[in-house]
Amino acid sequence: MSQLKTDSSQQAIALFQIERDRWQPLVDERLERYAQYDDGCPAKLRDAIRHSLLAPAKRLRPILTLLSAEMCGGDPLEALPVACAVEMIHTYSLIHDDLPSMDDDDLRRGLPSCHAQFGEATAILAGDALLAQAFEVVARDVQPASLAVTCCREMAVAAGASQLVGGQEDDLASEGREDLTAEDLAKIHDRKTGAMIRVSLRLGARIAGANEEQLKNLDIFGEKIGLTFQIVDDLLDYCGEQAKMGKSVGKDSKSSKLTYVKIHGLDPSREIASDLIQKSIGALEGFGSDAAPLVGLAHFILNRTN
Amino acid sequence: MSQLKTDSSQQAIALFQIERDRWQPLVDERLERYAQYDDGCPAKLRDAIRHSLLAPAKRLRPILTLLSAEMCGGDPLEALPVACAVEMIHTYSLIHDDLPSMDDDDLRRGLPSCHAQFGEATAILAGDALLAQAFEVVARDVQPASLAVTCCREMAVAAGASQLVGGQEDDLASEGREDLTAEDLAKIHDRKTGAMIRVSLRLGARIAGANEEQLKNLDIFGEKIGLTFQIVDDLLDYCGEQAKMGKSVGKDSKSSKLTYVKIHGLDPSREIASDLIQKSIGALEGFGSDAAPLVGLAHFILNRTN
Repeated sequence: MSQLKTDSSQQAIALFQIERDRWQPLVDERLERYAQYDDGCPAKLRDAIRHSLLAPAKRLRPILTLLSAEMCGGDPLEALPVACAVEMIHTYSLIHDDLPSMDDDDLRRGLPSCHAQFGEATAILAGDALLAQAFEVVARDVQPASLAVTCCREMAVAAGASQLVGGQEDDLASEGREDLTAEDLAKIHDRKTGAMIRVSLRLGARIAGANEEQLKNLDIFGEKIGLTFQIVDDLLDYCGEQAKMGKSVGKDSKSSKLTYVKIHGLDPSREIASDLIQKSIGALEGFGSDAAPLVGLAHFILNRTN
Repeated sequence: MSQLKTDSSQQAIALFQIERDRWQPLVDERLERYAQYDDGCPAKLRDAIRHSLLAPAKRLRPILTLLSAEMCGGDPLEALPVACAVEMIHTYSLIHDDLPSMDDDDLRRGLPSCHAQFGEATAILAGDALLAQAFEVVARDVQPASLAVTCCREMAVAAGASQLVGGQEDDLASEGREDLTAEDLAKIHDRKTGAMIRVSLRLGARIAGANEEQLKNLDIFGEKIGLTFQIVDDLLDYCGEQAKMGKSVGKDSKSSKLTYVKIHGLDPSREIASDLIQKSIGALEGFGSDAAPLVGLAHFILNRTN
């Protein structure tokens, strides 16, 4: 039984990987096109933005957008602008999170982090520029206007003070605090990681004209995989190898930062992650076999090694 | 003749000041309403954003937006959301510009700058949150959708890598460079200050349904007053009193930063500013007497003492 389950999740992962390999080059190509900055942008700023945006990356969020669009009956190609916009916001948040005054990380996506390569001021500005550009891309390349406005609004809320930015503020404030509960930790990560994952899924669905019921189920799916993503991050940080991760590892577990592994222990954390993934897959039931690529992605997130 | 001219510009300034005193409380009140952050925003982040956004300020950019809307035959009240959005972007840019890795300023709007009060990490995040919120406000509160999208797009371009952010990058890079020409300096400031001034005017005009000819003339007006604003800033930095300015003064002239006063000298800088203001007023000719408040604002910018 256990063997069967493993086989079926491996098949699901393989299906997701085929989809990922199909879409990732298109995302990279479109990002490259968006990253020209030939309209008077200073060369160093341009280089810094391109360094971070075009570094080899999993493109998890844009692929979520495209798969969500396809699952809801839309054309993933039409979702490419919003997919790139969420990747821009994600990249901006990585650049700012890596800054010396924040998480102080010198390595990102297998390369020197933006400030390590270009200095702090340029890194802050590169992040700022990417955040603004995300809205430019959506406002310019999404039609009709009513859809573009909805996407801008949902993206702004997800990136804002109560979600992405608020989650990072709370994450920084949690350092050294031993009194946080598992629930506090989940809440921080739901905002820091979950909000952008949910909006990645929502925007793809919006492009496909999804209904409220579908959006609600995607929110649940996004919440569960977002949390799993973070738990697996903690597990990899505890057990992983730096080379595979492309960023500094062992840092959170060594620092005074609270992690799932510290709160629950190693094996229970794995169990919680596995349980969340089952629940995430349950939320996609109504989409039938069209959900297969996202089901595969859920298994992939649970089993990823970097 | 010179006395008459002075009298007429004083009358124009008085008219502008009446308009300003009429609109400024409405801008402040609306900003206060937008600055609730009661939806899960961490308290410290909320305090940091409010500290910077609600500090006593001239509200020049939102007032430009409202006066521009009124001049183009629109209802300024309908332009309040975009007016507040440009003030949010302006405030975010001040917070980030003041950071230790940028201009390293501890004083802003008569108060400790955001990082001086709340620390660097929270200040960076407060700026990030304000930038995102500007788009949230426009996408949610501007109707119809086609107008909201246009405003989001123009705002994003003005705030982006080739305009506001690029101008700040070039401004930082200009430090210590003696080889810059007056033209280089004008180009930096046109992007760092001018772009957001132009878009403040444009968005008000957009809300009022202005035509392309009107938008073009507002661009010229904005370009000229933006440059004047910077020249007067340099003059005040050279001559001004810290108490009146509400920020550190004498800093640029003492540092290796290039200023108009350094390139042209004191009196020629005043002449250039005066000439630019005449040209800015010329660009508003087609608006007839409806332009009076903005003409007054142009005189005000030239004659301001803080």
